[in-house]
Amino acid sequence: MAKVGRRPGNADTRAEIVAAAHACFAEDGFEGVSLRAVARRAGVDPALVHHYFDGKAELFMAVMHIGRDPGEIFEEVHTATRKGDALVRAFLREWEPGAAGPSPFVSTVQAVCSSPGAGRALREFLTERVWERARADGTASGARLRQSLVTSQLWGVAMARYILRIEPLASASLDEIGEWVGPLLQRAIDGWAPTPPD
Amino acid sequence: MAKVGRRPGNADTRAEIVAAAHACFAEDGFEGVSLRAVARRAGVDPALVHHYFDGKAELFMAVMHIGRDPGEIFEEVHTATRKGDALVRAFLREWEPGAAGPSPFVSTVQAVCSSPGAGRALREFLTERVWERARADGTASGARLRQSLVTSQLWGVAMARYILRIEPLASASLDEIGEWVGPLLQRAIDGWAPTPPD
Repeated sequence: MAKVGRRPGNADTRAEIVAAAHACFAEDGFEGVSLRAVARRAGVDPALVHHYFDGKAELFMAVMHIGRDPGEIFEEVHTATRKGDALVRAFLREWEPGAAGPSPFVSTVQAVCSSPGAGRALREFLTERVWERARADGTASGARLRQSLVTSQLWGVAMARYILRIEPLASASLDEIGEWVGPLLQRAIDGWAPTPPD
Repeated sequence: MAKVGRRPGNADTRAEIVAAAHACFAEDGFEGVSLRAVARRAGVDPALVHHYFDGKAELFMAVMHIGRDPGEIFEEVHTATRKGDALVRAFLREWEPGAAGPSPFVSTVQAVCSSPGAGRALREFLTERVWERARADGTASGARLRQSLVTSQLWGVAMARYILRIEPLASASLDEIGEWVGPLLQRAIDGWAPTPPD
């Protein structure tokens, strides 16, 4: 507990903040956590958390190994002609393995599975950061159904490509995946007049 | 190493065989593992492995927390009129949470993510046990593409329902999910004349 006031710039400090944040999010979800609570748990000054992370969303993304705010991705592809194609390519681009190792998607899935609270935190993050910002059309419940189906398809493709590594999805180019998955995703985006839940 | 010859009927013995199998599959994939090798690693007589498990597939399914041979599920729904609807319902039925706790799908995903070898083992299991038995139609590469897209959709829905727990997919009945996801899955099953990989 003697860490308060330690100089910034230490990689260990950042890692300790991320570890403390992981524990906080797993216990209290995304909405219930404040940067102040994370600082307290890490035993550092709140200013140090702000030094490393530009807000709670960025800190959460670091915990979950998410490279880019999914809300930005949805906004980027919103004006595309073929939204399904553009969305799956933009989504997967963030998860492609680097030269250094495997896809960060593996770490994200491990983090989400690590506790029910971690799953809850990601769900709240998606709801608050992504879906509320997405343009609503149709009924609210119909939009939520489409959003959940689109999310399930994107995560399914990432599971198949990065974790199960089943062919041809594992080795295909992102353009090929866009060609194959885009039409399926487009149908989920457009809806097919399903009965939304009450 | 004095375990050889220990009496069957001990729950710990079964758990030790499963743990040894997990390590074997993670190192050598599904195809490369023999029940004899698992017995050797567990320090038990091979007959004891056969006493607990009716073959390698059943042992692998125990390691991966898979309740039912997916090849059986595919064969069962093959004659259904609405295959997409029937398939997603039959698939999810095996993963529904019991009274005792969360969905076994969480444990399966954790097992698959635990090492690259575990992912490889599941991939080989799917290829050997499920896809080779599924009736091939069209070109081989086109069939493989459809199989990988169907698998990605099924895993995506399970991720959304059991791990992310996003609504309405998390709380809906299996009949509702069949109604929503069935048409999307049907399109992946039928294909839409995509260009298959060479």
